[in-house]
Amino acid sequence: MPAEEMAKLGQSQKPLLAYGDGIYVVDSEGRRLIDGPGGMWCTQIGYNRREIADALAEQALRLSYNSPWYTINSPASELAERVAKETPGDLNRVFFTTGGSTAVDTALRFSEYYNNVLGRPEKKQIIVRREGYHGSTSLTAACSGRAGNWPNFDIASERITFISSPRFRPAKGLSEAEFLDELVQEFEQTIERIGPEKVAVFLAEPLLASGGVIIPPKGYHARMKEVCERHDIIYVSDEVVTGFGRCGEWFASEAVFGVVPDIITFAKGVTSGYVPLGGLAISEQLLARVSGANAKGGFFTNGYTYSGHPVSCAAAIANMDVIEKDGILDHVRELAPYFAERLIELKTLPCVVDVRASGLVGCVECMLDPDADEPTALDKRLGSLIDKHCFELGLIVRPLGNMCVMSPPLVITREEVDTMVDILRQGIVLATEDMRTSG
Amino acid sequence: MPAEEMAKLGQSQKPLLAYGDGIYVVDSEGRRLIDGPGGMWCTQIGYNRREIADALAEQALRLSYNSPWYTINSPASELAERVAKETPGDLNRVFFTTGGSTAVDTALRFSEYYNNVLGRPEKKQIIVRREGYHGSTSLTAACSGRAGNWPNFDIASERITFISSPRFRPAKGLSEAEFLDELVQEFEQTIERIGPEKVAVFLAEPLLASGGVIIPPKGYHARMKEVCERHDIIYVSDEVVTGFGRCGEWFASEAVFGVVPDIITFAKGVTSGYVPLGGLAISEQLLARVSGANAKGGFFTNGYTYSGHPVSCAAAIANMDVIEKDGILDHVRELAPYFAERLIELKTLPCVVDVRASGLVGCVECMLDPDADEPTALDKRLGSLIDKHCFELGLIVRPLGNMCVMSPPLVITREEVDTMVDILRQGIVLATEDMRTSG
Repeated sequence: MPAEEMAKLGQSQKPLLAYGDGIYVVDSEGRRLIDGPGGMWCTQIGYNRREIADALAEQALRLSYNSPWYTINSPASELAERVAKETPGDLNRVFFTTGGSTAVDTALRFSEYYNNVLGRPEKKQIIVRREGYHGSTSLTAACSGRAGNWPNFDIASERITFISSPRFRPAKGLSEAEFLDELVQEFEQTIERIGPEKVAVFLAEPLLASGGVIIPPKGYHARMKEVCERHDIIYVSDEVVTGFGRCGEWFASEAVFGVVPDIITFAKGVTSGYVPLGGLAISEQLLARVSGANAKGGFFTNGYTYSGHPVSCAAAIANMDVIEKDGILDHVRELAPYFAERLIELKTLPCVVDVRASGLVGCVECMLDPDADEPTALDKRLGSLIDKHCFELGLIVRPLGNMCVMSPPLVITREEVDTMVDILRQGIVLATEDMRTSG
Repeated sequence: MPAEEMAKLGQSQKPLLAYGDGIYVVDSEGRRLIDGPGGMWCTQIGYNRREIADALAEQALRLSYNSPWYTINSPASELAERVAKETPGDLNRVFFTTGGSTAVDTALRFSEYYNNVLGRPEKKQIIVRREGYHGSTSLTAACSGRAGNWPNFDIASERITFISSPRFRPAKGLSEAEFLDELVQEFEQTIERIGPEKVAVFLAEPLLASGGVIIPPKGYHARMKEVCERHDIIYVSDEVVTGFGRCGEWFASEAVFGVVPDIITFAKGVTSGYVPLGGLAISEQLLARVSGANAKGGFFTNGYTYSGHPVSCAAAIANMDVIEKDGILDHVRELAPYFAERLIELKTLPCVVDVRASGLVGCVECMLDPDADEPTALDKRLGSLIDKHCFELGLIVRPLGNMCVMSPPLVITREEVDTMVDILRQGIVLATEDMRTSG
């Protein structure tokens, strides 16, 4: 189990899921639950889609494996073209990995290779944000700014510097525009302190998903990109969560957040979670500096046994077909304002201190003392209680501490959004009552 | 593409594979080829197996995803039990990842967590061997002792120390027993030099696969394990290639190489390459030191979106069923001596300087000057020419420089072994002639 509580190793009482259908999962006791977190932000087209099952079986019979080292396969080539068509700018070269962690790990290894070939081996520093999350390999975990993941791991790395989370808190007395200026200034100052000749990468999610759906001030990404350009720093946009429809677009970087990055990493939604796959799209202009006549004889010796796996790629193609055929991107864009509106209504509950949403991902943040600066241990207990009540009422919440993240399958209807938010409201009310009665 | 030659980026002329059936793949021009390398050491039960296609489709319809963070699923639980039953010793706790690289990365992150919880944060050094290979994440790539992967990457790490490849070369004047003594002594001395209180892990493949199927002297692993035990060092056996039947056993560590390690990593053969999956099995005794009453409140905050993926795990269960039902382990054990014998016959060719084999994996090493110490650039060209001729004759070779590795699907018959080796012989003869005529 990921994030296993070691004191209870082997005694897991986690629910066993038996079936899935549409936006619902059914546990081993027959309890039908709305999949609030969308699996792990990934079940875009929902469960039990025959199109994907057929694609998996057909490709497994046709060609179940091909080694990306010495042969190629049609699904990988076709998927690379399809993805490149949807990426912004000239991000037309696609490299496949096994998931989000390995996609980000490969992007960072590419930056290393890139700067070595360019003859500036000292340009290796990575700048990331607090509250960001980028994966679970040794290097990507070290880039994660979520303090809860740090204990007992050697996360500190001389290669990595953290800057502020772009989370706007009106209470702090700054306007959003002033806050944005501060963030950009901090970025500039951090680069100056390290030395621009030493900074290789700025790695950022468009919205900080597992940090609690933190949406930066408007214009943030474009401003940060401008700084990167000035200092020849690679801007990696980690779209593992936001890609493939979550925000109503194939990719959110440009369409939603106004930035054309140098590299986009993706995973999760690319197959709607039906089978492992991740990847990255790299700018042609970036690659041109270290390929062709500029290659200096180099080989980018990075790759996975399962890179461009034909079965995974066939599933991803079928998934993109479903998203197109069913008009899911349009659906998300149409439904998003209502989804946000319904979540924001929860602010009428005294313990709901903030609600954030973009596309079909939102976060309802709960604190017993709305004036406190940071959530307490009790607030985290509140999250668990909300989860417990919602589970009984038919909704998986999977709170991140005191934050209830809603990231349902994108095929959710308006009526189902109502049901989901109604259950969440009930769960919060019941949990708050529990806390009060238990003292 | 992995290991992309950057000077030729975007101009790949690699063959496109269209179909697979049994031990054969068919390219887009209709050329039927024996899959000599078994994909990437992974196509154990061969292509076009309906059992796996059915398992994929059925599970994709039943439950296509479940987040390992907060729910469990039957295929993952069942597979963990099945794997634990086949691992040696008390390696009964199984953790799933997305492939071999992430399995090794997780094993190394576990060792970090383990020593931090045990209150000895200085015990972090990793000892690996030259010519070993352990993956493509930043950390696992740094553990790889294959020099060809190093240029333009920052492989050197203060955490990692390389010791000698256990490759026995009779020409060096030592007996195999003396060579083994030397290897063990070097290991001891390396630990003493670093300080045993600083050494966390010894990471080793049972046989060094992509190093060229290097088989250590008999007794090597048990001797190395004994040293590890004396210094409280975790022995990680990387069975990504050797696991799941390649050497005629579910796992080779104990059954073939006489060692019960602390952790076994696996991938590839676990699904016969049909879908991405990797994992590790950890000793209960090891875990007991940092779990239950010894947990010190810790959480092992490591994990992947696709950890314990229900579809991947269902494929792996179906794969294990096929291996059992078709008696594939027995088949490998019975056929292995003949496979080795036929490869060893190639030594009658003047340029074949060494042949190594275990189970159904073997390596035919070619050098134009049999007395040279190291392969030259010309020898590597010879490898490419052998590959080219064999491809025309109906066999994929995928040489590692001057080394032709044969790791065919385990369902290969005696007659197909004959065909495979006959083609390889012709390919070597034709390539040698080419080299002679071209000067």
